[in-house]
Amino acid sequence: MYTGKQTWVFAKPPVIVSHATIVGPDEGEGPIAEDFDYIYSELDIGEKSWEKAERKLLEHAAQSALEKINMTQEQLQFYVGGDLLNQIISNTFAARTLGVPYLGVFGACSTSMEALALAALMVDSGAADNVMAGTSSHNCTAEKQFRYPTEYGAQKPPTAQYTVTGAATAIVAAVGEGPIVECATIGKVVDLGITDPFNMGAAMAPAAADTIKAHFNDTGRTPNDYDLIVTGDLASVGIPILEELLAKSNIQCGQGKLQDCGLMVYDIGSQNVQAGGSGCACSAVVTYGHLLKKVVSGEYNRILVIATGALLSPLTYQQGESIPCIAHAVSIARQGVK
Amino acid sequence: MYTGKQTWVFAKPPVIVSHATIVGPDEGEGPIAEDFDYIYSELDIGEKSWEKAERKLLEHAAQSALEKINMTQEQLQFYVGGDLLNQIISNTFAARTLGVPYLGVFGACSTSMEALALAALMVDSGAADNVMAGTSSHNCTAEKQFRYPTEYGAQKPPTAQYTVTGAATAIVAAVGEGPIVECATIGKVVDLGITDPFNMGAAMAPAAADTIKAHFNDTGRTPNDYDLIVTGDLASVGIPILEELLAKSNIQCGQGKLQDCGLMVYDIGSQNVQAGGSGCACSAVVTYGHLLKKVVSGEYNRILVIATGALLSPLTYQQGESIPCIAHAVSIARQGVK
Repeated sequence: MYTGKQTWVFAKPPVIVSHATIVGPDEGEGPIAEDFDYIYSELDIGEKSWEKAERKLLEHAAQSALEKINMTQEQLQFYVGGDLLNQIISNTFAARTLGVPYLGVFGACSTSMEALALAALMVDSGAADNVMAGTSSHNCTAEKQFRYPTEYGAQKPPTAQYTVTGAATAIVAAVGEGPIVECATIGKVVDLGITDPFNMGAAMAPAAADTIKAHFNDTGRTPNDYDLIVTGDLASVGIPILEELLAKSNIQCGQGKLQDCGLMVYDIGSQNVQAGGSGCACSAVVTYGHLLKKVVSGEYNRILVIATGALLSPLTYQQGESIPCIAHAVSIARQGVK
Repeated sequence: MYTGKQTWVFAKPPVIVSHATIVGPDEGEGPIAEDFDYIYSELDIGEKSWEKAERKLLEHAAQSALEKINMTQEQLQFYVGGDLLNQIISNTFAARTLGVPYLGVFGACSTSMEALALAALMVDSGAADNVMAGTSSHNCTAEKQFRYPTEYGAQKPPTAQYTVTGAATAIVAAVGEGPIVECATIGKVVDLGITDPFNMGAAMAPAAADTIKAHFNDTGRTPNDYDLIVTGDLASVGIPILEELLAKSNIQCGQGKLQDCGLMVYDIGSQNVQAGGSGCACSAVVTYGHLLKKVVSGEYNRILVIATGALLSPLTYQQGESIPCIAHAVSIARQGVK
């Protein structure tokens, strides 16, 4: 495998042979609802705590991805995943249910592509024939842990984002049918000093810009090589900042090519989601649910997904620290595309 | 690379070309104190919060490992690490300081070997020429987050363990001088229903047994292939349980071959540490500080380090859940050993 400075270019690009997306009611009322495998009509997902609800979403997504290709838990070799909750409990408990060797990862909302990148590396290197990458988030678990329990009914400023309730998994394998993972760019921690947990988009935009620049530098590609360049959850506040940062580096994406999963999962005009979606599941359900279908159908030949993560800690920002951010990018293409 | 069911056997075993261990005052009074690179005499490490103290330990360990081989931050290609704190903040902030591409991982106290296994996979597969693996823990950050702030002076039962204050890093490279990483066995989540956060050894022992059995099954090795089989932090309660579980599977380690980092880092007879050491740094400082020296000196040809992790969440055990556990094993040998 050739390795650019911070980019892995896979010699035998692993195949996403199955993927599943399970969401909650708000996502089920959004513009891409028909692309999800299952929509729960109630936020509690039939469970007694928000945390158990999130876990059930992830377990459902894991089971669904296995069933689609008639794979048993015993045939699945590894599970790589993480989530926003302390001790990444949704993934830990889902891994207990799956019963497969488990690598826990944490990159806040960048976890989706961190897990996919590592899963692809494991398959490409021959360390595994198949690996599942997964992640989840739930609006009420995230708000409770990072800001205020939703039951308080606290008001939010318009720069705030709305954590996606959902889970998504992808099974990556050495051979099979499906979109391929061509390369992955691992991000650095970037921190320009934003301290407001209600303005994640502004905090994360510089990390996204840093990883996009590194990706083009390492691979020699340009925006022309992609049909879509999509960030995880910069939402309406972060995207204009990213566009400005990229323009300063002479990276022009052109009209409509740069989009954001946080602006795709909801209709921010009619749904009460402030600046747009966020959370580990945001980039995951949009990518695995909506975008992969367009890659398979031929609408897109190749896309670059840059999952953005605000590594926000309630404790450190109470101690006066700013919010360090990171972004990991993965290039996904249709098989046979040059 | 040959892959056993859950074991990666590295074709060109990566070399641990540098490693550093930084500890606090209690570890500096323990029986292996002379093996550590630096001992802080005060628990606050000269910082204003326990969290900042832990971060400083890790930053010190990262810098020290680089300096030992005259490597600059710019030459370091990736950093893989995690810790016990929510949002793995010690590692996030240390990665911000390092400024290199960063993969955050979480496996509680198994994080040390999870990070080393992934670093070795990245180097073996050609995804990187060098990678730093790191972890940290601090007695006061862990107690505050998982049980009670130490300032409360709460009493502890004798089954409790004492979180190691320290940090350790290892730089893994494709070529160089030093011990080699031969193979790694990734553990499954094992949960036999222990719910007492003051009895981690009992909770983790079944996970250690599961991974050790898998390691021997996958590789065809036996305890005779190792000079030392060492668990991360089962301490005096967990080790007898592990011995019993292994004996039931007809795995006999023989006199003195099965040891535990939690029983090596302190003198549990004279130091007030209950059943022994724990925490992410426990297996890390003992392995990188104490054991690697014995591998290099020839006292050991080959060791198996099984880092054990209790994926304890204060929230889930308050919700009535038990403590899921995991263990990851890495085989380390002297170069040239057959």
